[in-house]
Amino acid sequence: MTKYQYETVTVTIIDKVAHVQMNRPKKLNSFNPALIRDVRTVFQDLGEDRDIGAIVVSGSGRMFTAGLDLTETAISLESEGDLARLAYSKRAHLKEFQGAFTAIEECDKPVIAAVHSGCYGAGVDMITACDMRYCTKDALFCVKEVDIGLAADVGSLQRLPKVIGNQSLVRELCYTGRNFYADEALQHGLVNRVYDTQEELIAEALKMAALIATKSPVAVVGTKHNLLYARDHSVREALDYTVTWSSAMLNTEDIPKSFAAFVSKEPAKYSKL
Amino acid sequence: MTKYQYETVTVTIIDKVAHVQMNRPKKLNSFNPALIRDVRTVFQDLGEDRDIGAIVVSGSGRMFTAGLDLTETAISLESEGDLARLAYSKRAHLKEFQGAFTAIEECDKPVIAAVHSGCYGAGVDMITACDMRYCTKDALFCVKEVDIGLAADVGSLQRLPKVIGNQSLVRELCYTGRNFYADEALQHGLVNRVYDTQEELIAEALKMAALIATKSPVAVVGTKHNLLYARDHSVREALDYTVTWSSAMLNTEDIPKSFAAFVSKEPAKYSKL
Amino acid sequence: MTKYQYETVTVTIIDKVAHVQMNRPKKLNSFNPALIRDVRTVFQDLGEDRDIGAIVVSGSGRMFTAGLDLTETAISLESEGDLARLAYSKRAHLKEFQGAFTAIEECDKPVIAAVHSGCYGAGVDMITACDMRYCTKDALFCVKEVDIGLAADVGSLQRLPKVIGNQSLVRELCYTGRNFYADEALQHGLVNRVYDTQEELIAEALKMAALIATKSPVAVVGTKHNLLYARDHSVREALDYTVTWSSAMLNTEDIPKSFAAFVSKEPAKYSKL
Amino acid sequence: MTKYQYETVTVTIIDKVAHVQMNRPKKLNSFNPALIRDVRTVFQDLGEDRDIGAIVVSGSGRMFTAGLDLTETAISLESEGDLARLAYSKRAHLKEFQGAFTAIEECDKPVIAAVHSGCYGAGVDMITACDMRYCTKDALFCVKEVDIGLAADVGSLQRLPKVIGNQSLVRELCYTGRNFYADEALQHGLVNRVYDTQEELIAEALKMAALIATKSPVAVVGTKHNLLYARDHSVREALDYTVTWSSAMLNTEDIPKSFAAFVSKEPAKYSKL
Amino acid sequence: MTKYQYETVTVTIIDKVAHVQMNRPKKLNSFNPALIRDVRTVFQDLGEDRDIGAIVVSGSGRMFTAGLDLTETAISLESEGDLARLAYSKRAHLKEFQGAFTAIEECDKPVIAAVHSGCYGAGVDMITACDMRYCTKDALFCVKEVDIGLAADVGSLQRLPKVIGNQSLVRELCYTGRNFYADEALQHGLVNRVYDTQEELIAEALKMAALIATKSPVAVVGTKHNLLYARDHSVREALDYTVTWSSAMLNTEDIPKSFAAFVSKEPAKYSKL
Amino acid sequence: MTKYQYETVTVTIIDKVAHVQMNRPKKLNSFNPALIRDVRTVFQDLGEDRDIGAIVVSGSGRMFTAGLDLTETAISLESEGDLARLAYSKRAHLKEFQGAFTAIEECDKPVIAAVHSGCYGAGVDMITACDMRYCTKDALFCVKEVDIGLAADVGSLQRLPKVIGNQSLVRELCYTGRNFYADEALQHGLVNRVYDTQEELIAEALKMAALIATKSPVAVVGTKHNLLYARDHSVREALDYTVTWSSAMLNTEDIPKSFAAFVSKEPAKYSKL
Repeated sequence: MTKYQYETVTVTIIDKVAHVQMNRPKKLNSFNPALIRDVRTVFQDLGEDRDIGAIVVSGSGRMFTAGLDLTETAISLESEGDLARLAYSKRAHLKEFQGAFTAIEECDKPVIAAVHSGCYGAGVDMITACDMRYCTKDALFCVKEVDIGLAADVGSLQRLPKVIGNQSLVRELCYTGRNFYADEALQHGLVNRVYDTQEELIAEALKMAALIATKSPVAVVGTKHNLLYARDHSVREALDYTVTWSSAMLNTEDIPKSFAAFVSKEPAKYSKL
Repeated sequence: MTKYQYETVTVTIIDKVAHVQMNRPKKLNSFNPALIRDVRTVFQDLGEDRDIGAIVVSGSGRMFTAGLDLTETAISLESEGDLARLAYSKRAHLKEFQGAFTAIEECDKPVIAAVHSGCYGAGVDMITACDMRYCTKDALFCVKEVDIGLAADVGSLQRLPKVIGNQSLVRELCYTGRNFYADEALQHGLVNRVYDTQEELIAEALKMAALIATKSPVAVVGTKHNLLYARDHSVREALDYTVTWSSAMLNTEDIPKSFAAFVSKEPAKYSKL
Repeated sequence: MTKYQYETVTVTIIDKVAHVQMNRPKKLNSFNPALIRDVRTVFQDLGEDRDIGAIVVSGSGRMFTAGLDLTETAISLESEGDLARLAYSKRAHLKEFQGAFTAIEECDKPVIAAVHSGCYGAGVDMITACDMRYCTKDALFCVKEVDIGLAADVGSLQRLPKVIGNQSLVRELCYTGRNFYADEALQHGLVNRVYDTQEELIAEALKMAALIATKSPVAVVGTKHNLLYARDHSVREALDYTVTWSSAMLNTEDIPKSFAAFVSKEPAKYSKL
Repeated sequence: MTKYQYETVTVTIIDKVAHVQMNRPKKLNSFNPALIRDVRTVFQDLGEDRDIGAIVVSGSGRMFTAGLDLTETAISLESEGDLARLAYSKRAHLKEFQGAFTAIEECDKPVIAAVHSGCYGAGVDMITACDMRYCTKDALFCVKEVDIGLAADVGSLQRLPKVIGNQSLVRELCYTGRNFYADEALQHGLVNRVYDTQEELIAEALKMAALIATKSPVAVVGTKHNLLYARDHSVREALDYTVTWSSAMLNTEDIPKSFAAFVSKEPAKYSKL
Repeated sequence: MTKYQYETVTVTIIDKVAHVQMNRPKKLNSFNPALIRDVRTVFQDLGEDRDIGAIVVSGSGRMFTAGLDLTETAISLESEGDLARLAYSKRAHLKEFQGAFTAIEECDKPVIAAVHSGCYGAGVDMITACDMRYCTKDALFCVKEVDIGLAADVGSLQRLPKVIGNQSLVRELCYTGRNFYADEALQHGLVNRVYDTQEELIAEALKMAALIATKSPVAVVGTKHNLLYARDHSVREALDYTVTWSSAMLNTEDIPKSFAAFVSKEPAKYSKL
Repeated sequence: MTKYQYETVTVTIIDKVAHVQMNRPKKLNSFNPALIRDVRTVFQDLGEDRDIGAIVVSGSGRMFTAGLDLTETAISLESEGDLARLAYSKRAHLKEFQGAFTAIEECDKPVIAAVHSGCYGAGVDMITACDMRYCTKDALFCVKEVDIGLAADVGSLQRLPKVIGNQSLVRELCYTGRNFYADEALQHGLVNRVYDTQEELIAEALKMAALIATKSPVAVVGTKHNLLYARDHSVREALDYTVTWSSAMLNTEDIPKSFAAFVSKEPAKYSKL
């Protein structure tokens, strides 16, 4: 039995890979306060676990996620009382919700989303905070927020354009809330790969995660960290930053170990980070 | 008869959709001072019109636009007199020209460009300030500026790379000034869709605009506003900003109306924004 | 004989085009301190050469480049001594290595990378600092750094995502260090065009460079300068900047010359910049 | 009679200096919609007036200004209706109010605020958008907003800390809304100089403006422009920017004229900008 | 008895003011892991406490704080093992230490530091994250870090220059680690006021906090929030941001209440935020 | 005899302190191309010299510097030829001039300017790139550029406001080009200290430099580096950056050495950096 126990999320450890499953199948893995809290916690916990090198996140049951659980949302929709106080009270809830997905980004290990069937609303916010995305051929994505009267404020509007890199499609998806499917997601680079079945999807995602987990953790963590920095800064700033990062990290035994592995054709054994 | 009367631009209102036509067909809708002024004004006016939910912009006559009207440009090309004063005098003209297309971006309502036939020079500057782009299969685009001895300084160099997301193509187009066509524009995501005829193009653009106009204006305006903010800021800044935006906007009747519409399968009736 | 003489790099001038060849074929054009120094110098020199309008860079021998020359790297991997001093001593070396590729970006003339066969590690760092990339159909690219225990700190993590515009592929390439080939590079916009043979590759790259070199140098230099500025700033900042740039540059004889050329169908003769 | 006629503002031209007086003495020059509009317009108009080299702004009657005119404010304080729509409707009003003071900053000519007696609330927002501030010894300043239940959102919170450069005082003034006086304003660098009487104040402000107006307009405009750019950017960015600015502006006859004036001890006569 | 119980920090509530005392007098309130954790927690807790309007923080016993507790620091100074792993392991500790003081900044209520006697090292990092600083006339400040072989990495180098606004003094203090005293701190605006005795100091700090706590919480929170935003952004960005902030917050009952209070001369009673 | 030999600059080494003297006394140490080149070179050379811990820069002869040498400036003031080409040709010269003073900032060792008598124009640009400024009581400073028809484009407009932190004075100095003297410079924090004679000035500057040079070089270099980063970034960014910097630098023997020195009261002996 794993040491990771949460109310709404299941974690399975296979060697250096953690498989995180959202586990509210009857509620279609929709985000209620418990799932929001657990997503944040599990990625913080796994981020600190020196035995883990990469993570796969998937949904249990019928679909990846139906998005926000509208029956249990903490963001109440009062319309009475002082308007400034109503507005102010929203702030903490929104930050908490955002924080769940930002925890994926701030987790130093690469995270692969494995999406089967539906991925609605907050699901898109979530997967755009992941490093890579795989899906089944019957996967369906939807930036649903416009259809419930709000802007997608927990990450989709902020991260989706930077993931796929093209504004034309982003605007269409966000203004219309229309469904889009595996092939379109692949063609526009939202997902890296499409698989026939959920079994194959999970297997291949775990395989990719296992491959990444064989690499030098110094290299992998540094790659994620610097890619995120570069996304949000000018090239000049990002180059300067990486000098400071690498000045510490280049003094690592992983480099001679990597060379030795290259010569001997034996896989390197890196220490935990 | 519409209340919107301009010298070089025609506006037709169909329910909540405004159709803006550049109307200098004999001059191939090239940008003279009047058209520059009218483009700015019409998008400011429509931005403030609470009855409008989305906008289509197209060209009348033979093509979308031939670009800058070289016979009437306000940017004079003197080469005598004090050089600092010559340089300084260009500033106001350039800002005014830029302002026409920035007015499209600052207009809170989504704007769809419907391009038929040629879209040269300043036409590319213009359409990259729009939210989406549709075109006919015979459409032709050209970042023409390099061929007249200047850098594309009213938006193409600034917005085109952020619209299509790929630098390789952008550099080639901007250094060579070569024509590129509907299929390449579609493949690289400059346009969202290609249609056979201009009639079909306009009809489908209006249909898309009409669809967007049925959505909650609170949601649509917030989506455009936050997408633009996110384009120009880090993810962390964009997430913080959207908390402040949404803290006000989540207290809206549009959310319960949207839920009710979802349950009843009846379209929601949102108030004007 | 050309005036440009370097230890590890060959320069051929054809009219206004410079062809830079990395010339360490026995070492697979891998980057040793001499090549790093020469790459920086040659692009600084050509940047100041008023007779040059565009540049092609290619590799001699079996491949474009095998990446860092591990037998001769200046970045020593000590692990003894004071750790802060070890870290500090890396800074200058890293900045020097980065500087070689930044010199390509800061060179005012467009640079086309012509990649045949292998382009490993630092090769990807290099070509992402170029304006365009062409390759042979047997070209192979690899963000190799993760496999030698480090983050790609001389440009790939900083520039590759901004060149291709899509994070999904970038993350996969950078975490796995897998090879990717001409067709995938073309599909995702890392390269502009693919050719059958190295001869054809070089010929076409030179032809494109020659075409660019016929354009107004005021226009071309301004285009590169402003595209780079726009990549690293918000649209609003980039528009403001280009006003200041163009206020000086619009007062150029190249504009009337360009018009005259357009009317006469004779190519314009522009002065050196 | 001057060509500048506004409802709530008086303009007097003395050689190259414009003296702008807020002219609602019975209302203590408080900002109603007309004054907000006129302030914006007058600084835009004077910014474009090639005969003007510097500007003094003062208040007529008992004090500089009592701040926002609470009896006539366009920012209505409804508390009924849809909350998102109420919030949205504030945006345009706030931007318009901010725009009045930003027009002072965007006016290319230096602006000196001459403050006598009270300068409350929006008055502080206004004077921090000016280049320099002079006052009488009985002047009194107050960041009043906290006492009417709001954050100072038209410039004080944004500009005051950058004008005086010290956060300790700023926080105290903004959290308490307390009055502060000429001596404290001088000691902390909010004002440049203090005078005994209003007559002396105006005379000295006009004298300083006249002195500035004798300088090369190319130099003065470039100085204001680049100081504002530097305030809001890193040193590295500001240095890069000024290269682009000066590359155009250094080719000016004002430089040899300045040299000649220096040698001959005769004041230079510069052309209008 | 107060509901706030921590191991190393004492909280006293007086009406709407919380008085936080660092309570390790035998250790001169030096920062050990427990105090670091408690400082973070207490400011997060008080930030969420709707009954609190302002906070005073002081030290118990002989001095404000002696800085980092070198006998108990969590930042171990190993020099053996893999250098990259040593470096990486520092990251979490540093972020946690920084987080304690950032919690002061992120706490929505104004925080006044009341410094008596010594304020060394981390103490300066701490007080620069506060809104205002008061001290006794025998107070002594010291940016101590340079004397223990490190850069001041938990806030002094980052915040001190922005608090006092002058680089000349900052450089001297940070390079020499010299003591500086109440009068110099007052003259350069590090502290707002100096008092003769600790009793007077605490009494006046509490009085100021009580005054702030009488103001509209909507106004005070918005003021702190927007001042922090403005410190870290351009004026243009800060003005845009405050429009979005105020569009929600202007619809508050606190504004009419404030007007009524002004007219009636009776203090306003604002609801909790 | 020192190993440092330059045409226009003299270097004296006293233990770990380098004293750089601008040595064109007959030309009042005005900046001609040779001095510009030598200033850049000497600070680059000293920055790489592991035996040097701090630097003093002063002028020889009658004054610190008279500013730009107008008889020998490389920035030619042509007014004939193509205007774009004239503008473009200025860029390289300006960047080179800026580079001389930026070399002071990029030199990792603290630099103290010791100013006696006049410090005109480019002299102010220079000293604001230093870490601290000392002067004689007869020192005179002047932002002269406005009087020769240009904006101060090699650093004064960019760095002076950030050094002294107050805009009111900066604007007055830059618009009027008036002289200001030691007492005003001290009061507003441009200089740290004022001395009676040049001998005392130099002696005290060297003493301060010697004091700094006794400190841990890891601490001093890290302090300068992070202060500069913090000046140009938000607090949040600067805190993140310093985590990365310190994660490498905290693993230093200088920390235990510093502790031991503290206990033993014997000065620490640090290794070179």
